[in-house]
Amino acid sequence: MTEHQHQTTDSLLKLRERINAFVQARDWAQFHSPKNLAMAMIVEAAEVVEHFQWMTEGDSRQLDAATREKVGQELADTFVYLLRIAEVCDIDLIAATNAKIELNAQKYPVEKCKGSNAKYTEYQ
Amino acid sequence: MTEHQHQTTDSLLKLRERINAFVQARDWAQFHSPKNLAMAMIVEAAEVVEHFQWMTEGDSRQLDAATREKVGQELADTFVYLLRIAEVCDIDLIAATNAKIELNAQKYPVEKCKGSNAKYTEYQ
Amino acid sequence: MTEHQHQTTDSLLKLRERINAFVQARDWAQFHSPKNLAMAMIVEAAEVVEHFQWMTEGDSRQLDAATREKVGQELADTFVYLLRIAEVCDIDLIAATNAKIELNAQKYPVEKCKGSNAKYTEYQ
Amino acid sequence: MTEHQHQTTDSLLKLRERINAFVQARDWAQFHSPKNLAMAMIVEAAEVVEHFQWMTEGDSRQLDAATREKVGQELADTFVYLLRIAEVCDIDLIAATNAKIELNAQKYPVEKCKGSNAKYTEYQ
Repeated sequence: MTEHQHQTTDSLLKLRERINAFVQARDWAQFHSPKNLAMAMIVEAAEVVEHFQWMTEGDSRQLDAATREKVGQELADTFVYLLRIAEVCDIDLIAATNAKIELNAQKYPVEKCKGSNAKYTEYQ
Repeated sequence: MTEHQHQTTDSLLKLRERINAFVQARDWAQFHSPKNLAMAMIVEAAEVVEHFQWMTEGDSRQLDAATREKVGQELADTFVYLLRIAEVCDIDLIAATNAKIELNAQKYPVEKCKGSNAKYTEYQ
Repeated sequence: MTEHQHQTTDSLLKLRERINAFVQARDWAQFHSPKNLAMAMIVEAAEVVEHFQWMTEGDSRQLDAATREKVGQELADTFVYLLRIAEVCDIDLIAATNAKIELNAQKYPVEKCKGSNAKYTEYQ
Repeated sequence: MTEHQHQTTDSLLKLRERINAFVQARDWAQFHSPKNLAMAMIVEAAEVVEHFQWMTEGDSRQLDAATREKVGQELADTFVYLLRIAEVCDIDLIAATNAKIELNAQKYPVEKCKGSNAKYTEYQ
């Protein structure tokens, strides 16, 4: 399988290409400094938070369809800016995330962290 | 190609599976209400912002290797919580993001938005 | 009572003066653009959020002394940047807040909003 | 001067009393856990950030009257939640902020931090 064929079947690569084309068509790369994109990302993350701010934890686990749809939209906006930051900083997001999970696995070993709220909190 | 083979080649699906296994091994799903995960995600997004808060936009476009590494780690943490929210809310992140890009394309038509800072700002 | 005497007895004015002197002594005003300060403020707000992200609501209402001390420090940092934004944007924070409370009182009339979670959420 | 008279002349104490009365009239204290309030505060802080995300630093220093009005409103909302967190956590905000400024003064001594961007960044 060639590199190009790989790019057209991998869901994340396809999405990156689509977002890059969207930005290029509008000539918006000039506004997409990492500084500005980090601001845009946290603004969208806050719109996710806003849906949950007055909900109990229990209710947040049982969203109605309309709220789930809206949360999905805010999550999508957050994701777009997250991908753009990776793009403009030339960060391989999948590789960086796998590396961070390795670090977290060492930081939070299963035998010490498993299951208790107290330990979980302490390890955070 | 079977569903299982697809999951093992798609980079995002592989990552989701890895994160789910990480959480399951530690029995942490009990703490991962959407409400809590939204808080954790914005805390990590803020750690991305922190790297850029006193930088000029120009400097943020030219990160040294050490800073880029650290930004990659904070971006990874943000991404992990973003994927967890999608997971526990049963949101198909790729589908939700493609749908949101369609909406954004209608909201920001190329012919009206292309290239000017003023228009860009106005359309945001 | 003279203006100066008033400034030395009002707790908020005294704090503003102290913070302004702190910034001036370090020649930091040059870095304190509203854009940068807004980033710094949300980073500190996230450090408040971080204390509560894995806590139940009930536990967040019963902080131990050490956690309350730390929350107070993060709240203080958030407040300092909030006051700086008001300062550099030439916003009278007390007047702006009173005006916003008037608006909120119209938006959330007592007779419609009182006491129910459902109504509260709906009105937000 | 009695304690009560002091409360009616100090701008911050007057504001706190007004906000507390607002909350009490709507019976909203039940929703105001520190956890929920921290979420609400960061959502409002993000609305401040949103105004500046695509602006240059220079433009953020020269807001037009309409934008300054809106920034003032978002800053007011952030401030209200900040005061509510202090209230429900029983934190003396003025005392906590003065104590934090003392700490910051030790952390960032004038002779080491004065004026250079590089040093400022390094000390953060």
